[in-house]
Amino acid sequence: MKQSHLFTKTRKEAPKDEVSLNAQLLIRAGFINKELAGAYAFLPLGLRVMKKIEQIVREEMDAIGGQEIEMTTLQGKEIWEKAGKWDERVVDVWFKTLLKNGTELGLAFSHEEPISMMLMQHMNSYKDLPQYIYQFQTKFRNELRSKSGIMRGREFLMKDMYSYNTSKEDLYKFYDKAKVAYKNVFDRLGIGDITFITVADGSVFGDSSHEFQTLSDVGEDTIYLDREKMIAINDEVYSDEKVKELGLKKENLEKVKSIEVANIFPIEKKVSDALGLSYIDEKGTKQPIWMGSYGIGISRAMGTVVEVKNDEKGIIWPESIAPFMVHLIELSNGNEEVTKKAEEVYKWLTEQGVEVLWDNREIGAGVKFADSDLIGIPHRVVVSAKNEDKLEYKKRSETESQFVSLDELLQKLKK
Amino acid sequence: MKQSHLFTKTRKEAPKDEVSLNAQLLIRAGFINKELAGAYAFLPLGLRVMKKIEQIVREEMDAIGGQEIEMTTLQGKEIWEKAGKWDERVVDVWFKTLLKNGTELGLAFSHEEPISMMLMQHMNSYKDLPQYIYQFQTKFRNELRSKSGIMRGREFLMKDMYSYNTSKEDLYKFYDKAKVAYKNVFDRLGIGDITFITVADGSVFGDSSHEFQTLSDVGEDTIYLDREKMIAINDEVYSDEKVKELGLKKENLEKVKSIEVANIFPIEKKVSDALGLSYIDEKGTKQPIWMGSYGIGISRAMGTVVEVKNDEKGIIWPESIAPFMVHLIELSNGNEEVTKKAEEVYKWLTEQGVEVLWDNREIGAGVKFADSDLIGIPHRVVVSAKNEDKLEYKKRSETESQFVSLDELLQKLKK
Repeated sequence: MKQSHLFTKTRKEAPKDEVSLNAQLLIRAGFINKELAGAYAFLPLGLRVMKKIEQIVREEMDAIGGQEIEMTTLQGKEIWEKAGKWDERVVDVWFKTLLKNGTELGLAFSHEEPISMMLMQHMNSYKDLPQYIYQFQTKFRNELRSKSGIMRGREFLMKDMYSYNTSKEDLYKFYDKAKVAYKNVFDRLGIGDITFITVADGSVFGDSSHEFQTLSDVGEDTIYLDREKMIAINDEVYSDEKVKELGLKKENLEKVKSIEVANIFPIEKKVSDALGLSYIDEKGTKQPIWMGSYGIGISRAMGTVVEVKNDEKGIIWPESIAPFMVHLIELSNGNEEVTKKAEEVYKWLTEQGVEVLWDNREIGAGVKFADSDLIGIPHRVVVSAKNEDKLEYKKRSETESQFVSLDELLQKLKK
Repeated sequence: MKQSHLFTKTRKEAPKDEVSLNAQLLIRAGFINKELAGAYAFLPLGLRVMKKIEQIVREEMDAIGGQEIEMTTLQGKEIWEKAGKWDERVVDVWFKTLLKNGTELGLAFSHEEPISMMLMQHMNSYKDLPQYIYQFQTKFRNELRSKSGIMRGREFLMKDMYSYNTSKEDLYKFYDKAKVAYKNVFDRLGIGDITFITVADGSVFGDSSHEFQTLSDVGEDTIYLDREKMIAINDEVYSDEKVKELGLKKENLEKVKSIEVANIFPIEKKVSDALGLSYIDEKGTKQPIWMGSYGIGISRAMGTVVEVKNDEKGIIWPESIAPFMVHLIELSNGNEEVTKKAEEVYKWLTEQGVEVLWDNREIGAGVKFADSDLIGIPHRVVVSAKNEDKLEYKKRSETESQFVSLDELLQKLKK
């Protein structure tokens, strides 16, 4: 893509009321626009990143047998009353609205009950199970405050998956598979080395629930981490018994700040009991369905990556989710030979399947370099009159540049 | 995909309160689920169709210079007050909700004003124009009644594009390009031959506005159509003068029912004047921006295709947006040789890039054929013990089947 075609511009200053680093950087670099506190539009660069995160998550959910659907935002109250969650003293993040005839509706803060009810239309026998159903859907949560940028929005994109099994044993078998799938997601997002599965709760939902926590000083959570065993305990459920129960030792645990990027929990029979979900077993007997729930905030994951992958100049995207792979900086100053060479490089890389943002704008080199560092595309290639036949190549994450041929460049990109 | 993996089942009866044919067929075939009147969930088959329609529209919008973004559902009231559209006597389809602190918010029924305000953050000079910005975003419209299935929902997916030009001339140049892009979209959706550009209005928005109307007896609109000239006039603006103005002859016009599948209109300076949108021209003078608006309801387009492409047995999808290209029906009755052969065909077609739904369920042939006709995948291939080395092939739109080899099958699919 030619940068002259991109309508967004970088900004030197973030809006004054924006206190989170992720939103500051993403707004300054033109990835998002603040519509309201806690509600952000995704502009071309930001949407590209979101779609890449979404695709990674989709592939991992499909790999463990997931089927993708898309539920609605508007929800009837009957189902939530049945589940005991319509009352705002129980769920305090509802946005509610009214039909013309006065009927109250809710804006989806979650979907386990509606998805379960929908599934019951298509399910009867043990032969119809297991099922693993997921979606990417906007959630609405009426948070009192919203100061964490795209990490905690009032409107945000979430992948939620629900598992339906005939037995507790099968539920927990799938639960373990989902843990692996989630680990794969964070590895592919480039934050696997600092993201740890964390024991989060041992009471409400059966055996336990788990979070995935990414280490960060700006995190709202505190965890006790055993780095070697790659497991942590959330502060909220931390106790001597819990440490012992997990076979850990207090002296091996670090107390650190972290961001909750995902959570999974075995709902077990809780929703089935509330809504009367059941299947008919081999003997013709009605049995409850065993459920699990698996969530990742897609926009939150994007915000988390920005929080942990940046320097004083801007964002440093991992290759897997970068809006483009290469930022091609043309320093032509009206020299047509340079423009021609930049175009050749652009075409050649594009033909090789490399996504390139070509800065063909007629502005100074200093502005181009500053914009490039702020936007954070992983590989920078400069074409100028000085460099003769070679290209000046630099990784966003490194400081030294080097001069390379086109073939050498491709080798570097393939690494 | 193996059909045994698909969680949806077909139904013999549609819900009794569902009067529209599109929703009846789509619910019975397991493409959608009714959550509320006017709000439907998209199940795996339905989501596949939606994504294909979306991709066709995306490609055509990108081809005329569009840049994709994604706005928010929650909208502040200030901007709409400024535009004079917050008042429910002006816009009577608002859903509204409240933040915890009592601040009123609206659920997006449209986005031209918020997108324009966002763009102003990134635009200043004539050098920054033109811009063509689009999105696929859910719209919320608080319709009094909702009985047209996914053709007129209270919550539905829409592609909306907005054009920003420096002059009236440039606006109308792009407007003509958009007409062609829209024509391409409906050709690719398989309804180009019965979809006509229709003069819709000559007063509110400058010169005129246009709709794309698809011929259908269930349509809510009436148009006067000149089939030869491929142009129509909406009943609402039909007059002797209009006929003359367009160079048409009354005797050549058919009065027919139709479905409005898209509309485009030159906003001209209306939004700019209301919101104070401007750019600085070459001479340093402030000038108003010339806007256009271009909408296609994605879910409405899907519903329209179902309304016009069906028979008494079910849906007949065009290849371009079918959930799968081939429905592979395995009639094994426990015969492992047949299952093995079906698997070979499945693997071979998949390797050729053909999307196949493989009905590997252990149920009777009658049910399989009925389901296949209801679901409406364009090509049906039967593998059974009877057919020896040949495959029984039939198009969904035809009645006669024939026996073909694998290579002959591929030839047929490529046509």
